[in-house]
Amino acid sequence: MFPKNAWYVACTPDEFADRPLGRRICGERMVFYRNGAGQVAALEDFCPHRGAPLSLGRVCEGELTCGYHGLVMGCDGRTVSMPGQRVERFAAIRSFPVVERHGFVWVWPGEAARADEAAVPEFEWSDSPDWAYGGGLYHIGCDYRLMVDNLMDLTHETYVHSTSIGQKEIDETPCETLRNGDEVITRRFMHDIGAPPFWQMAMRMNGQDPSQKVDRWQICRFTPPSHVMIEVGVARAGQGGYDAPLAAKTSATVVDFITPETETTMWYFWGMARRFKPGDASLTTQIREGQGRIFSEDREMLERQQANLLTWPERRLMTLNIDAGGAHARRIIDRLLAAEAAEVTGAAAEG
Amino acid sequence: MFPKNAWYVACTPDEFADRPLGRRICGERMVFYRNGAGQVAALEDFCPHRGAPLSLGRVCEGELTCGYHGLVMGCDGRTVSMPGQRVERFAAIRSFPVVERHGFVWVWPGEAARADEAAVPEFEWSDSPDWAYGGGLYHIGCDYRLMVDNLMDLTHETYVHSTSIGQKEIDETPCETLRNGDEVITRRFMHDIGAPPFWQMAMRMNGQDPSQKVDRWQICRFTPPSHVMIEVGVARAGQGGYDAPLAAKTSATVVDFITPETETTMWYFWGMARRFKPGDASLTTQIREGQGRIFSEDREMLERQQANLLTWPERRLMTLNIDAGGAHARRIIDRLLAAEAAEVTGAAAEG
Amino acid sequence: MFPKNAWYVACTPDEFADRPLGRRICGERMVFYRNGAGQVAALEDFCPHRGAPLSLGRVCEGELTCGYHGLVMGCDGRTVSMPGQRVERFAAIRSFPVVERHGFVWVWPGEAARADEAAVPEFEWSDSPDWAYGGGLYHIGCDYRLMVDNLMDLTHETYVHSTSIGQKEIDETPCETLRNGDEVITRRFMHDIGAPPFWQMAMRMNGQDPSQKVDRWQICRFTPPSHVMIEVGVARAGQGGYDAPLAAKTSATVVDFITPETETTMWYFWGMARRFKPGDASLTTQIREGQGRIFSEDREMLERQQANLLTWPERRLMTLNIDAGGAHARRIIDRLLAAEAAEVTGAAAEG
Repeated sequence: MFPKNAWYVACTPDEFADRPLGRRICGERMVFYRNGAGQVAALEDFCPHRGAPLSLGRVCEGELTCGYHGLVMGCDGRTVSMPGQRVERFAAIRSFPVVERHGFVWVWPGEAARADEAAVPEFEWSDSPDWAYGGGLYHIGCDYRLMVDNLMDLTHETYVHSTSIGQKEIDETPCETLRNGDEVITRRFMHDIGAPPFWQMAMRMNGQDPSQKVDRWQICRFTPPSHVMIEVGVARAGQGGYDAPLAAKTSATVVDFITPETETTMWYFWGMARRFKPGDASLTTQIREGQGRIFSEDREMLERQQANLLTWPERRLMTLNIDAGGAHARRIIDRLLAAEAAEVTGAAAEG
Repeated sequence: MFPKNAWYVACTPDEFADRPLGRRICGERMVFYRNGAGQVAALEDFCPHRGAPLSLGRVCEGELTCGYHGLVMGCDGRTVSMPGQRVERFAAIRSFPVVERHGFVWVWPGEAARADEAAVPEFEWSDSPDWAYGGGLYHIGCDYRLMVDNLMDLTHETYVHSTSIGQKEIDETPCETLRNGDEVITRRFMHDIGAPPFWQMAMRMNGQDPSQKVDRWQICRFTPPSHVMIEVGVARAGQGGYDAPLAAKTSATVVDFITPETETTMWYFWGMARRFKPGDASLTTQIREGQGRIFSEDREMLERQQANLLTWPERRLMTLNIDAGGAHARRIIDRLLAAEAAEVTGAAAEG
Repeated sequence: MFPKNAWYVACTPDEFADRPLGRRICGERMVFYRNGAGQVAALEDFCPHRGAPLSLGRVCEGELTCGYHGLVMGCDGRTVSMPGQRVERFAAIRSFPVVERHGFVWVWPGEAARADEAAVPEFEWSDSPDWAYGGGLYHIGCDYRLMVDNLMDLTHETYVHSTSIGQKEIDETPCETLRNGDEVITRRFMHDIGAPPFWQMAMRMNGQDPSQKVDRWQICRFTPPSHVMIEVGVARAGQGGYDAPLAAKTSATVVDFITPETETTMWYFWGMARRFKPGDASLTTQIREGQGRIFSEDREMLERQQANLLTWPERRLMTLNIDAGGAHARRIIDRLLAAEAAEVTGAAAEG
């Protein structure tokens, strides 16, 4: 169950640099490629001639050409040409609204007429020389909402990530959960604590003494359909914490674009945008590798949790205070789903 | 959906030279072995004692012996003996009519009483010193009819096999489709063109100048249930093409025995019978390797096409002029299936 | 179909020495660990908070701690604590009766109130300095009853294990099957024969001449739910066979604990308790390796037999004289299953 009238991150441009990319998003099999005008296109991955996947084809002079019998497909889902054929009456396939922004390709798997490019979210960290970004992609065998839960309750860091970003103080410090329209915020501020290994490394790279006491913060922001941005960082203790001057801080935003593939599988575009040493490419690599290891710990937990939930489908889970962020996020998702279902019913009644 | 009252290629004798071979053909699990008289036998792969697969057993002095408890099974599906047992009333298992011919084992998965050895097809290229044969076997995850479609429309060569046998002129030259009883023929003749890489290699091996212009032909013959023989070749341009004297030609027959395993998987016995340099064993190897690479390109396309069709089961495909050969073949298959269904219904009404 | 009110071997203590062990037994997903009192505990592998598998957690100071958010679970299935939470009203999970005995962990997957530790079977070979034990664990893709059948009819050794323990004389010597309450015994005594390779090795290690003629015995004992102990051995021919003086014998008990995982998969705890050279650890290793190879031959046969039975579900198998042991064992299992079903029905009628 995922809203379809929404912008999801589908892929990054490097994934279709050499050949078309086939990927399933919200249950829809799609092909992504760059057309002759240099723009990204997203179509059903289905040739109307014999059902071959268009992603096995090639882009020839900017046109997607089926690799089976040479049908040339246009960005609008209408056949442009085919050797020896008149194609005017060929059945069209779906094209999906798509936007390239912030280094990602965003796709709208629902009703094309409702897609509004202005609704693609903006981020402080993108397109700014003060920030550097690195990240990766994981395929994870779980309902995307389990990942939202995971990221909106960071007490799991103490247990799942005990050797890198976890520390007992996360658990011991209550979090606060707020709603602001369709945005959900869960935040936690820890004072005068030691920095865990990942942050010690980051402080060292940022020219700060990793052994000093710090204030640490975690501010998780969910926005529908399923993006979670987490402001994280440490500041020399007593300098104002989150509000400390930049020179006293080492801070970043954990970027989580969570894209459903099917009901029980998802694409996880993870990364970190940092506000220190933005020009240091080897630091970007080092952080990406560390983050990749950390998020593979989540992957194991989430896939095993999903397997358990499929074994015990009738069992109710608990929603504790620490789960408030995920619970609010699910309520927003449910409201969007209900609205989409009502539109379908309404349209049927009118029809 | 496959006709069962038909001869299918099941295996080659080398596959059961050392031990019995278990293989599923048209949904039936069978075991193949050579009996004491030197003849091939095909039985249900199921020991009547405890259901062990007989293909895990051994052939001892020409008798198939179950590898679990030593039951000795006869070629007729009746138990011959078992240590310490009286076997007269043991349940029989099915035996399947089987013929060894042209280097292949042919099996009849349907009603044994209807099997007629004379109906095993004959081929010009088999058992002739003027021809040499080489080939291989692929297991492919698709409905066998997708392979028939593939072979009855060779415009795909331009796209799927662009580096070996494909060339733009295939696409640009209309084909002609004929029916002759239960035989379907699709053919295409190209004139005064360059030879593609595979044919240049063949011409060179045949002592001809590969840079010269050629006439090229493709004559695909489908016969039920699912065999496709394709006469292919090139001749020095202007010498009569297909009808040119042998000395001006390099020609062969692509052999395709297409055997259903299940509704969505198949065994593909592919090969090439050539009419030049029949005594050159290293040429046979070279051609087999090239053909193996080419047909693995089809395998990927067909398996991905099948996956797409299972995702979109309700979607209608198009039947263009180039698809006429496959469409006629499917109509013949459908008629055979209807006839088999009618016989079953008729038998039930009489019963 | 497996009785649930019974003691099954679930694992060995080394399997949860470092971390909790997750294992499915009779359809139930369980976690095994050792608590602060040094006792083994078995619980549902499901954290009541968010459904994470507890087996991904850690044992901290003797308490099982969920690896996702730190919930501390008690051996009784009630939550002990969780950081920042009041846990009194948390839903309980099932705990399973469990006993550590004879080097194994035994679990009772059914009604806890019926579990009686005194019903865990005793064995002559356990906890005795005259015996040495070595063994292993295989996961096998078959109904556990196919393994019971296998072990209660050793004529299969002639065919499945022809190079190690099989010999023609097994086949040729009739077996005798007895029932003694819920115990089923199948036994066979062979006289004045050559020893097969495995027993020649054992005789050599035991200081006996492996080329001499021997008397050989096999006494298989099934006890419910699914344990099979097989007394095996050879004695210098004419010394009394099974009743020969110890000095003339090389003998052992093949240990088979057969534990259902699901309807079509099982855990096979196999081993050999021998009554010669008990202090020779390298001999234990040598026997374990030989036995492991032999039992992997059974695994292949049983998994292929299971696949065949799923293909032909309607087909009746034969029950010959050699199958009497397995048939009696199945009848006892069926009676236990019927009794459990009747209790459930009775309880429902009273409720």
